Amino acid sequence: MNNFTFSSPTNVIFGKGTEQDVGKYVKALGNKVLLHYGGGSIKRNGLYDVVVKSLQDAGVEIVELGGVVPNPRYSKIKEGALLCRKENVDVVLAVGGGSVIDSAKGIAAATLIEEEEDFWDDYIMKKRRPVKALPIGVVLTLPAAGSETNRGIVITNDQTQFKRSLGSDHMIPKFAIINPEYHYSLPNYQTACGSADIIAHLLERYFTHTTNVDFSDRLLEASLRTMIHVAPLALKNPEDYNLRAEIAWCGTIAHNGILGKGRVEDWGTHSLQHELGAIYDITHGEGLAIMFPAWMKYVWKENPKRFVQFATRVWNVDYAVEKEEEIILEGIRRMEVFFKDLGLATRLSELNIDDSKFEEMAKKMLLGKETEGNFKKMTVEDAVNIYKLAL
Amino acid sequence: MNNFTFSSPTNVIFGKGTEQDVGKYVKALGNKVLLHYGGGSIKRNGLYDVVVKSLQDAGVEIVELGGVVPNPRYSKIKEGALLCRKENVDVVLAVGGGSVIDSAKGIAAATLIEEEEDFWDDYIMKKRRPVKALPIGVVLTLPAAGSETNRGIVITNDQTQFKRSLGSDHMIPKFAIINPEYHYSLPNYQTACGSADIIAHLLERYFTHTTNVDFSDRLLEASLRTMIHVAPLALKNPEDYNLRAEIAWCGTIAHNGILGKGRVEDWGTHSLQHELGAIYDITHGEGLAIMFPAWMKYVWKENPKRFVQFATRVWNVDYAVEKEEEIILEGIRRMEVFFKDLGLATRLSELNIDDSKFEEMAKKMLLGKETEGNFKKMTVEDAVNIYKLAL
Repeated sequence: MNNFTFSSPTNVIFGKGTEQDVGKYVKALGNKVLLHYGGGSIKRNGLYDVVVKSLQDAGVEIVELGGVVPNPRYSKIKEGALLCRKENVDVVLAVGGGSVIDSAKGIAAATLIEEEEDFWDDYIMKKRRPVKALPIGVVLTLPAAGSETNRGIVITNDQTQFKRSLGSDHMIPKFAIINPEYHYSLPNYQTACGSADIIAHLLERYFTHTTNVDFSDRLLEASLRTMIHVAPLALKNPEDYNLRAEIAWCGTIAHNGILGKGRVEDWGTHSLQHELGAIYDITHGEGLAIMFPAWMKYVWKENPKRFVQFATRVWNVDYAVEKEEEIILEGIRRMEVFFKDLGLATRLSELNIDDSKFEEMAKKMLLGKETEGNFKKMTVEDAVNIYKLAL
Repeated sequence: MNNFTFSSPTNVIFGKGTEQDVGKYVKALGNKVLLHYGGGSIKRNGLYDVVVKSLQDAGVEIVELGGVVPNPRYSKIKEGALLCRKENVDVVLAVGGGSVIDSAKGIAAATLIEEEEDFWDDYIMKKRRPVKALPIGVVLTLPAAGSETNRGIVITNDQTQFKRSLGSDHMIPKFAIINPEYHYSLPNYQTACGSADIIAHLLERYFTHTTNVDFSDRLLEASLRTMIHVAPLALKNPEDYNLRAEIAWCGTIAHNGILGKGRVEDWGTHSLQHELGAIYDITHGEGLAIMFPAWMKYVWKENPKRFVQFATRVWNVDYAVEKEEEIILEGIRRMEVFFKDLGLATRLSELNIDDSKFEEMAKKMLLGKETEGNFKKMTVEDAVNIYKLAL
């Protein structure tokens, strides 16, 4: 087990009716809020009205900025930061899923950089961590990204089509309100993509060469088995509170950092998917459901024992001496079947994506570095080969 | 799943050599520290010297108070609070296990109460939460109590022999340094007691009537299986870093709150053990290893299905239709064998404790309330019956 540090300071407020208190939590952080959201689903399901009323009752002044799109854009962050400066906003509230939260975190940080700096060029592309940000609150509408309690963002530059990540402790939300009732109205496709995203956060941590990580292995396996159990049930019973609650709470824990402590994480598959997302605007979770089986088929020989453990403990493949490869491939196969059963594509060709940009994506992913990922240090050639396996 | 809130703000700094930075972390909180510790084992294993040097290098002024005993006493808290006021101490550092940490938390809170108040009478006995406390840091030497990242304390009043608990967000440590290398020198008996304590924290959360808690069930089972796997190995290989690290990290997670979210916890067995501890000065973990099997035998009929899940998932008892009681009792039996194998007593008579004070302890436990515990709402009669089963 490696040395590590851990804390999870975000105040998670979880359960029925919790969104009604959002005004109180925002008021504790500031007096003028940027209310940030996406395409308007929160207006259709009534959440917008509840949030606005709670903010008004608490005496918080509201500045609005909607229109965040999936794979959130840098242009929106620039717009939001300008607005916050102009209006003297002192707290940012994200009401939405991972895209809205990441956009809000970006705005909160970009508002406080120096006048002459550019958040994309001087921070994101240089992996330079912001040293301050406006305080951030969250009302989560889609359990998936896990961004509600962590320090990271993933942003796409509309002009260059680069998709890049950045982290800073100052971008950790102060509070996150999660009421799974608001997840009832999610279309099955979004529930499936969110579940695949949560599973991917677990897998990126699971596949490691770090030894003696028995405890976090078991916690990760417990989380994976939970998702495997509840995600298909939630698609059949979208208004079952308890199933929505299991997914939501697992989604938060999967990505608040606790499950990867003491181990080297991978994140190569996320990088492969980010390049897909930058060009094709594919839904993040579906891209991961496609790329993970392909990545696994390509990399398992780096550490067959870990893949045997994955197959036997997570997918209940019977262990049998001298049948290592069979066990491993059966584990991967069951995972692919599981994603298909959620209604997701597991091959690029199903989304009409061909091999014409594999080389370009692989090169963009590796721009400025020799390899990507840790379990397998991927080169451009490796990346192209993995994209081909996903075809 | 029930509504809940969660955060874990303590900065955990985990791994080899981390204690050398303690001065830096203390200095961020204050300039004059109360260095609080127990019977002097930290002087024998060299930790004391490392901590003092690090504090001095960071320019922190030191006031010392050692002598904390297991089942920490209120008299020491009074002494510490007086000292902190007199010396204008502005931060408290606990170097030790759960007893030292609880004592430090008590001192940190008692220092800042009003002159005319008494911390025992006006706070602990009234379950009144302190609204402020000096900042607290921890260097953990014994993984067991989990007090390093939570809000609770358990204190014994030397005069009345009452043992009582109290919690406050202001008593959550700001940082906790955990270097498992310092656990090498723990005697096997203490490692065993610490492991039983960690397991007990998991069991108090596991036994619930709350339904639809699949995710936390699985996380708890993963944690229990980890402890069952590593604790016996650590007794055989006391200087194996990785085994010590698994126990230490599991000990923290077992009691930072995360594993009990959304479910009603029990804590009746801890109450039974606290009464034992107040009178007999029994080691906390060993008391729990004795009381848990007895409690289980008495209460399983309250919710047989949960005990079947415990036996099959945690103890690998084969499931067989129509054999519910056999499965349940076999699970409890395997747990008792496990504790015995750690070298712990599992019956009171092994510690020469007879039935002469059962009635007295049961009545003290229920003073001012009708029942204790949640899984089974214990009366005085129930408590006496459970003590008898533990004889």
